[in-house]
Amino acid sequence: MRSREDIGLEIIRILKAREGGCASGQGLSLELGVSRTAVWKHVKLLKKAGFSIEAVPSRGYRLAPDIIPFNDIEVSSSLSTEFIGGKIYFFQSLDSTNTRAYEFGRSGCAEGTAVIADTQTGGKGRVGRRWESPPGVNLYTSIVLKPPVPPQSANNLTFLCAVALAETVARFIRRRPSVKWPNDVLVDGRKIAGILLEMDSEADRVHFVVAGIGVNLNMKEGMFPAPLRNTATSVMEKAGGPVDRAEFARALYLMMEKWYKIYLKDGFTPVLDEWRGYFEAAGRPVKVASFNRTVEGICAGVDMDGALLVRTPSGKVERVVSGDVVTAG
Amino acid sequence: MRSREDIGLEIIRILKAREGGCASGQGLSLELGVSRTAVWKHVKLLKKAGFSIEAVPSRGYRLAPDIIPFNDIEVSSSLSTEFIGGKIYFFQSLDSTNTRAYEFGRSGCAEGTAVIADTQTGGKGRVGRRWESPPGVNLYTSIVLKPPVPPQSANNLTFLCAVALAETVARFIRRRPSVKWPNDVLVDGRKIAGILLEMDSEADRVHFVVAGIGVNLNMKEGMFPAPLRNTATSVMEKAGGPVDRAEFARALYLMMEKWYKIYLKDGFTPVLDEWRGYFEAAGRPVKVASFNRTVEGICAGVDMDGALLVRTPSGKVERVVSGDVVTAG
Repeated sequence: MRSREDIGLEIIRILKAREGGCASGQGLSLELGVSRTAVWKHVKLLKKAGFSIEAVPSRGYRLAPDIIPFNDIEVSSSLSTEFIGGKIYFFQSLDSTNTRAYEFGRSGCAEGTAVIADTQTGGKGRVGRRWESPPGVNLYTSIVLKPPVPPQSANNLTFLCAVALAETVARFIRRRPSVKWPNDVLVDGRKIAGILLEMDSEADRVHFVVAGIGVNLNMKEGMFPAPLRNTATSVMEKAGGPVDRAEFARALYLMMEKWYKIYLKDGFTPVLDEWRGYFEAAGRPVKVASFNRTVEGICAGVDMDGALLVRTPSGKVERVVSGDVVTAG
Repeated sequence: MRSREDIGLEIIRILKAREGGCASGQGLSLELGVSRTAVWKHVKLLKKAGFSIEAVPSRGYRLAPDIIPFNDIEVSSSLSTEFIGGKIYFFQSLDSTNTRAYEFGRSGCAEGTAVIADTQTGGKGRVGRRWESPPGVNLYTSIVLKPPVPPQSANNLTFLCAVALAETVARFIRRRPSVKWPNDVLVDGRKIAGILLEMDSEADRVHFVVAGIGVNLNMKEGMFPAPLRNTATSVMEKAGGPVDRAEFARALYLMMEKWYKIYLKDGFTPVLDEWRGYFEAAGRPVKVASFNRTVEGICAGVDMDGALLVRTPSGKVERVVSGDVVTAG
């Protein structure tokens, strides 16, 4: 038995395949195995959800390609992944997409289940910080993954998300972004996207990971709160025009799935190698605040586990597993 | 405003302090700041909860010390910890104490919050295994802890629980148990207690850990299901008589708090050193099944992170972070 969402999704897929042409009510009814009245009801719901569907007399329904809503059906209808975004839960407003995805994870959802919110009232950054999440402009999404690894390795997925994000951003702005250790993507030294990984695990086995991703897509510089104005930017600012959020989400899910498959097959090394290609701080002065100490010196890159290496003035190389880069030259 | 449980708990504390002597209804009413009718109602509830309280004409209430129920009030009323078990949630039957404690953790409960169940219908062992949890005989408890450490170190708490458990078991059976890497306590080579650590974390910071502990207390050998009969034992079998479950829980919480304070102050080393004192497999043949391989050789102890070291026939020492010891000589 298909749910209401499934039938709506199928209608959009069929209309999209017509590329602006019409699909008759009769044809949709036959193809979907539901009555013509049911088709008409679903079209009504889809219009309510923001899809621009016209009824053309004696020819049927037509999807106008110029008005693209942002919701689960739109993202799903052209998504070509195998499992990331296999099920998408869309919310106009959520406390935090990570919190909701975590709940789905705890209830045993399928791997790849994704949560998207138009706005977050309690968007989370790392170590209890806030992630600015105004409505209508950005992408806030969290994906449930179930890598067969110990919790020590879950951190790998932060690098994997950073690589997928950098590759997606690059496609939209036609330039290479850079990555900041451990979990941000930057353009011209300003934050364009961030990653918050949370997990549920035993001492030696991950149950699931929630990969939370926030991307500044269509924020104008003036929209950032004052403290972020000199440190944040958006894809639109760098691309020179607005970005379709659904299209960005689909591209991101596809990149994530590509890298996740590489990770499952060949391990962390290829992911980390790719990440290093975006990491520009190696060789530069760096200052890192970790749990109970501050390490200062020249960044000597990252080791095979993704820990930051800092050559201190004494010549010793310190290994920082967790912390914040507070200044980088 | 005190809850019903708080007043009941206070009544039991007062009666316990009388050591079998009476406390008048009037006195209890004054001491607790509630009416005599309220005292009478609470005593009725306490009797229903299994406490043997007599009303002695013209002298008041008296707690018979011979019948000791097993519930949150009994465990709390003589507990001398600072925060472990500061709040105890007791259930006659639960799916799993770990699952419930995890929910308390997600809703932001205080550190040290404990869950106890008389029986578990879905008691969890490591890597998805089942933990036998019949009613009326054993201790199944889960404690929420919030150590300020990265997830890489959460495993430390498995060793900490093992040390606290070994010390508690030793006190009841008057012999030293041994520990099995990574998470069991044994007596005469048979499992007497197990630990299941689960956690909620970011990539670089633990939000909370649930330390789940199951102890075979008053199981007779014949009560174990056939497959466990030669591999499990109970405190009663080794102590020669039944054990008060509430007393065991209190002793365990106290030991856990002692070691947790040491851990917070001095780190993992003293905990691990203590653990090594109970670890008898070093120097013996060992076979470990890990994620996707089996390592066989002579056990060379554990390293500073608690990983198992195995010297293989080639002379190389392999480091096993996660796995099951399937045979030990």
